[in-house]
Amino acid sequence: MEDTEDTVAGIGEFGLIDAVTIDRRQPELTVLGPGDDAAVVLAPDGKVVATTDVLVQNVHFRFDWSTPEQVGRKAIAVNIADIAAMGAVPTSVLVGLACPGTTKTDVVTELANGMWAEAGRAGIGLVGGDMVSADQIVISVTALGDLAGRDPVTRSGARQGDVLAVCGRLGWAAAGLAVLGRGFRSPVSVVNAQRYPEPPYAAGPAAARAGATAMIDISDGLLADVGHIAAASGVGFDLTGEELPVDQRLTEVASALGADPLAWVLTGGEDHALAATFPSADQLPEGWVPIGAAVASPDAGPPVTVDGEPYEAEDPGWQHWRK
Amino acid sequence: MEDTEDTVAGIGEFGLIDAVTIDRRQPELTVLGPGDDAAVVLAPDGKVVATTDVLVQNVHFRFDWSTPEQVGRKAIAVNIADIAAMGAVPTSVLVGLACPGTTKTDVVTELANGMWAEAGRAGIGLVGGDMVSADQIVISVTALGDLAGRDPVTRSGARQGDVLAVCGRLGWAAAGLAVLGRGFRSPVSVVNAQRYPEPPYAAGPAAARAGATAMIDISDGLLADVGHIAAASGVGFDLTGEELPVDQRLTEVASALGADPLAWVLTGGEDHALAATFPSADQLPEGWVPIGAAVASPDAGPPVTVDGEPYEAEDPGWQHWRK
Repeated sequence: MEDTEDTVAGIGEFGLIDAVTIDRRQPELTVLGPGDDAAVVLAPDGKVVATTDVLVQNVHFRFDWSTPEQVGRKAIAVNIADIAAMGAVPTSVLVGLACPGTTKTDVVTELANGMWAEAGRAGIGLVGGDMVSADQIVISVTALGDLAGRDPVTRSGARQGDVLAVCGRLGWAAAGLAVLGRGFRSPVSVVNAQRYPEPPYAAGPAAARAGATAMIDISDGLLADVGHIAAASGVGFDLTGEELPVDQRLTEVASALGADPLAWVLTGGEDHALAATFPSADQLPEGWVPIGAAVASPDAGPPVTVDGEPYEAEDPGWQHWRK
Repeated sequence: MEDTEDTVAGIGEFGLIDAVTIDRRQPELTVLGPGDDAAVVLAPDGKVVATTDVLVQNVHFRFDWSTPEQVGRKAIAVNIADIAAMGAVPTSVLVGLACPGTTKTDVVTELANGMWAEAGRAGIGLVGGDMVSADQIVISVTALGDLAGRDPVTRSGARQGDVLAVCGRLGWAAAGLAVLGRGFRSPVSVVNAQRYPEPPYAAGPAAARAGATAMIDISDGLLADVGHIAAASGVGFDLTGEELPVDQRLTEVASALGADPLAWVLTGGEDHALAATFPSADQLPEGWVPIGAAVASPDAGPPVTVDGEPYEAEDPGWQHWRK
């Protein structure tokens, strides 16, 4: 065989598994980590929260924009954000990696480094996975979580009169995408926000403890994802324009690019902030910002308005295959 | 847009999710099924067993050999087999599907039909998933399971003197591969065994209850996978040639093709039978067949022998990227 150890074909499946699992430390939640037919993880609540997301090269990430380590962070973060959005605490992640045999071993070990770093940030371990050959790099991650005795906070519990609040960044990744799309690499704050999100994991369980009635992870865009709460709960939402958090950095970037920062905040995805509803504004935990209220479901028009008016979005939110 | 509803690009991500989830029944284990940020599944034991496997078109399956429904069955079966191999009972599966926008909607709904059929066979539901665009069809499945108060049966518990036993088919998928590879489509028994395995799910928990000391799912081949038990347990294994179950159908197919049925039994993967060790042959649950014993780890040579001799395999077992 001509392959050398600097490609995955050279090092082989089992060598690669060793390279990304040996000498990694597992938290106490992990009863049995990688290396057997399956992992075993504590589920103290007697229920387990589970979610899976798939990331595809040149669809969800580009190696000319992001390092493998940043892509690894992103793959884990987007999944843990979904666990947090149920009000749960993450307990573990499993990773499936498909890649061509010509993929550099370093790319895989750096992907793994990013995954372990983000998992560590959330206090959890990579407990299992699978590595297979494919034409294109595809990363599938499954995250598990624990509700600590609470009910899950679903999308369907919002009631008219509830306060709508958000925690985390809005529009940063979209601003970074605009910057990268024009060939720039700075400002690094928004560019890195595009490379990997920094979801406020602890804000999900905090919202649940504070009595949140509905919650969602903002992956497709604020209007689109609050629209999902609206649809599931049978309500509408009216956002208050002046309450929407438009960070000064977004305003500066938008000014430089001739763009509208409010469009990024309302329709930009991939920041993985959390949006939730609460019966009263007095209940918001630290870091949560009120941005509107649940109203009667409109007879016509979009379910989410801004200052009582439909927002004319150029792009209402990402859907796969529809472009 | 030119796309019509007979392709995934035409029906769109949310339409496709509806097509594969609406009107499906969830078992009582499922607290919260698809449609929210994450699913919630019972984990009565306070621990959860979790495993993930990725299947790639033209690596793990071919649509000229298998129908989408058969591929869907296989994707679920290979994962539940890993849960069974820990001695656990499956509780749910999550599915990630990456596919091109030109993929026919029917292919995806038939994949889903096969997945639901196999999940139903195991008494569980598809509780969540993700669908994204990619150049090639990639299916990632994560299965969860429950240990019902037992310790997991790992690969590392075999002790010298233990009986080695198997439950399920050996060599059938390899025989089917040989048939398909020569352009034939029959006998259908072995060809279908290649298209989708029929792992003995209940045999895993039964072995655990009977005191199995180590267990593995045979995905790569009997010699290779028993070798994994050997390595993890620090023992060797000697198989008894005349005890190896060589089904009459394999003998017939091998005779017709001029092949060796014993090679299929010893090195053929993808049947997802279970192999386990027990302190005594008296303990074997129904359906388990003794095939050898754990012996001292050999100083040299392969860890698994047949009648005391190394088996000269042309192919010692599948590894990704190594061919």
